[in-house]
Amino acid sequence: MKRLLLVSAIALASVPAAAQFQKPEDAIKYRQSAFTVMANHFGRVAAMAQGRVPFDAKVAADNTAIVMTMSKLPYAGFGDGTDKGLPNRAKPEIWKEQAKFNDLASKMQAEVVKLDAAAKSGSLDALKAAVGATGGSCKACHDDFRAEKYSN
Amino acid sequence: MKRLLLVSAIALASVPAAAQFQKPEDAIKYRQSAFTVMANHFGRVAAMAQGRVPFDAKVAADNTAIVMTMSKLPYAGFGDGTDKGLPNRAKPEIWKEQAKFNDLASKMQAEVVKLDAAAKSGSLDALKAAVGATGGSCKACHDDFRAEKYSN
Repeated sequence: MKRLLLVSAIALASVPAAAQFQKPEDAIKYRQSAFTVMANHFGRVAAMAQGRVPFDAKVAADNTAIVMTMSKLPYAGFGDGTDKGLPNRAKPEIWKEQAKFNDLASKMQAEVVKLDAAAKSGSLDALKAAVGATGGSCKACHDDFRAEKYSN
Repeated sequence: MKRLLLVSAIALASVPAAAQFQKPEDAIKYRQSAFTVMANHFGRVAAMAQGRVPFDAKVAADNTAIVMTMSKLPYAGFGDGTDKGLPNRAKPEIWKEQAKFNDLASKMQAEVVKLDAAAKSGSLDALKAAVGATGGSCKACHDDFRAEKYSN
């Protein structure tokens, strides 16, 4: 089985360790998994920022550290040929507008770095602002590159 | 929606930040995702240990750091009531023999700490031994607590 070209992993300077995939479905499952874990831990921090969960600076920082690790991972799973293989919501535009996609990924990663710093600062106000900016960077990419419905 | 009791998260001292789940399917998806990411990055290190990929100490250490982060996460997703909700391979024994399950989880986490140290040492021989021990700790749990087939 031919290894997939990890275009995004090369384009994104902050990707630490390109994951290798034998099949497109492995890449899709991997990137979806990384996003799932990231979203879960971001959600924990957002819940504190939004007052749904009591603010605990230590717990917030533990979670943002995980978000930061995860934020670097999914993009290795968007190599050429990984648009199909498992039900997924990646729009074809990801591979047609790679510079734009990678730019939005980099912006999200930069916001997550600021989010982690905000959590470590112990300031709930700083965390609220950073959660808003990070959430906006997620949405910016979803708006353009994530479909409403799953397709194969 | 009632929040799930995170029994495993409490039992495992090394879980840094318990994830919260609104529904059992969220917990199942989360734990499966964490295992998927962990397995992918462990696989990269194992490929070096087994000579299928050239040994690069920096790449190995980048990957073992991710494995170490991931090794602490999935167990928060095994709370009471998360045996059903999405197709999964978790055996009912997980909730009947929690002490044993948690012990095997702790052993895996301890092997991963050693794996990361071995990768950082830059010694391929040390890495080979640690990959073997880590893989054994994965298998020990899978043998007892992971079913062959998915069920709902």
